[in-house]
Amino acid sequence: MYELFDLYEKKKPEIRMDAGQLDIPPDSRIVEELRKYMDEFKYAPTSGLEELRGKIAEIHGVEASETVVVPGAKFGVAALLHGVKDVTLIAPHWPGYRHIAELNKANLHVIRTSLEHGWMPDEEFEVKGALVINYPNNPTGVVADKKFLEFLRESTRGLIVSDETYSDIYYDGKPASIIDLTFENCALVYSFSKTFSFPALRLGYVIAPRDVVKKVVEYIRATVTCVSPFIQRAAILALELKNEIGEKIRKTLHERVKVFSSTLGSCGFRFLEPRGAFYFFIDVEEDGTVFSRRLLDKGVSVFPGEFFGKYRTFIRASLTVPREKLVKAAKLFCEVARN
Amino acid sequence: MYELFDLYEKKKPEIRMDAGQLDIPPDSRIVEELRKYMDEFKYAPTSGLEELRGKIAEIHGVEASETVVVPGAKFGVAALLHGVKDVTLIAPHWPGYRHIAELNKANLHVIRTSLEHGWMPDEEFEVKGALVINYPNNPTGVVADKKFLEFLRESTRGLIVSDETYSDIYYDGKPASIIDLTFENCALVYSFSKTFSFPALRLGYVIAPRDVVKKVVEYIRATVTCVSPFIQRAAILALELKNEIGEKIRKTLHERVKVFSSTLGSCGFRFLEPRGAFYFFIDVEEDGTVFSRRLLDKGVSVFPGEFFGKYRTFIRASLTVPREKLVKAAKLFCEVARN
Repeated sequence: MYELFDLYEKKKPEIRMDAGQLDIPPDSRIVEELRKYMDEFKYAPTSGLEELRGKIAEIHGVEASETVVVPGAKFGVAALLHGVKDVTLIAPHWPGYRHIAELNKANLHVIRTSLEHGWMPDEEFEVKGALVINYPNNPTGVVADKKFLEFLRESTRGLIVSDETYSDIYYDGKPASIIDLTFENCALVYSFSKTFSFPALRLGYVIAPRDVVKKVVEYIRATVTCVSPFIQRAAILALELKNEIGEKIRKTLHERVKVFSSTLGSCGFRFLEPRGAFYFFIDVEEDGTVFSRRLLDKGVSVFPGEFFGKYRTFIRASLTVPREKLVKAAKLFCEVARN
Repeated sequence: MYELFDLYEKKKPEIRMDAGQLDIPPDSRIVEELRKYMDEFKYAPTSGLEELRGKIAEIHGVEASETVVVPGAKFGVAALLHGVKDVTLIAPHWPGYRHIAELNKANLHVIRTSLEHGWMPDEEFEVKGALVINYPNNPTGVVADKKFLEFLRESTRGLIVSDETYSDIYYDGKPASIIDLTFENCALVYSFSKTFSFPALRLGYVIAPRDVVKKVVEYIRATVTCVSPFIQRAAILALELKNEIGEKIRKTLHERVKVFSSTLGSCGFRFLEPRGAFYFFIDVEEDGTVFSRRLLDKGVSVFPGEFFGKYRTFIRASLTVPREKLVKAAKLFCEVARN
């Protein structure tokens, strides 16, 4: 995966639709806020600034002691899965979870889903150990409803790690969250990289019962020590602006979804239009890796479906370029498919 | 340890000499550089920006591929010790190493040293698994020479993790570094928190043979993803200013060492004057925790020796306050000792 990413970095194709890195710069008020606090040079508390934790708690209707600030959503998932022997994923899935499980030498169990079943698990499956879920989903764009989350809760004895990185990016109604249920044995993970288009903040948070939060704090204590105070200061403002920024990014991305979907659909590709997040997981009905290479020759980079589980005939396209480029890209998809 | 730290944070004693958090603000040019690059909002490469790795390589006379940028020295140590079953420390030692070993459920082996032996290990000891060393040392201030490092190398079959966080803070000649030896099976860890007095950067680096670097990169990939690009940009300038800033901080801290040492020595405390870092590890000849409490009542905070291994009659004082306060503090130490 990283080899291909490195190839893209070198080749610099005109239309980059590979990584989940939005082209939209972050809100200038957040950047200014960072500049303002830039000279806060000391360590911050291990679990995060009180003001930020308070803000997070307020947004989610939990106690501040049930929140902890982490350097990115992936770190949050890694902290929650630390020492966990069995990890269950629902495929297709973000490759990061596999990297974490591999690092921990955990046994990985994968529940497969298919485009035909709307990327939802069939009724019969078994969750071993902790279950990691990710709705709105990367790469499929499907969204979970409360009933489905409840069903997953009932099927899981271990911890449910709900990566809600894309929770603000939805196109037909706010998705359900794991903490809409009684959240015993559940943890929510959030990222500032997508809604705020600011991966460079390396910031996220975890919401979980106190004993789980304690585990995350111990993990922070033995690794990164804390998150930069100036980054946390900017995050407080970011959360205050979340509704406004969220609405703006949803509008932009929804337009992209529409335009890409209609051009792509017109030449017969099989895919589910995303209801959240900003990816299209497309059946190209040939080897996805080969398709990706041919697409690259035309100046468009995407990731093969292999990266997200064994989806050999699929590719993932990220809506990380402006509208006009998306139209061009979709046409090139059609061209590649015809030849 | 953290309970006491929290107590200090609440009580806000006049003279804070507990944590290793310098009072000196970072060089304003570094802060300005951070402001300048603040809007680099994307992900950075997993192992660090090429320019920064090149700069690190240049300073240490290694290849860029033997370097990797990490979010703090502790993270570097954690990455290097990941999956290591046996970890040997030389006591007294920074508590962070113990937190890492505990997180990893590693077997911890401790080589004890004493004030009488100049805080150096006796001739007979056994290193099991990886050895973590830290010279200039926190908390004792002792420095290792090349011969001693060679001796440790010969005694160790596993990896040597050399935490050289304080390598720029020395008072009688630049200390030896682990990479002055052929550095097979050795890793150097560096931090931007001390020389540059900028813990909020959450920045450090690791220098090691390529296979060890690869392991650290995999750890980053499965946890923090990368270090903020704007922080790395500021680090490039910081390293360019390192000689100048290092000289300045050494001068300031050396003055502090002298003044604190002379006042403290005059009332008979037993300690070794630090040759590096900025801590005094003092034998108070009574229970260090009790002594710390009595000192706190007089407005001075320090850490009991217990935090650094089983040094019950010791306390650690950080030179993290200006000269005038140090004189006052030393006098209060004497007062507490007399009563």
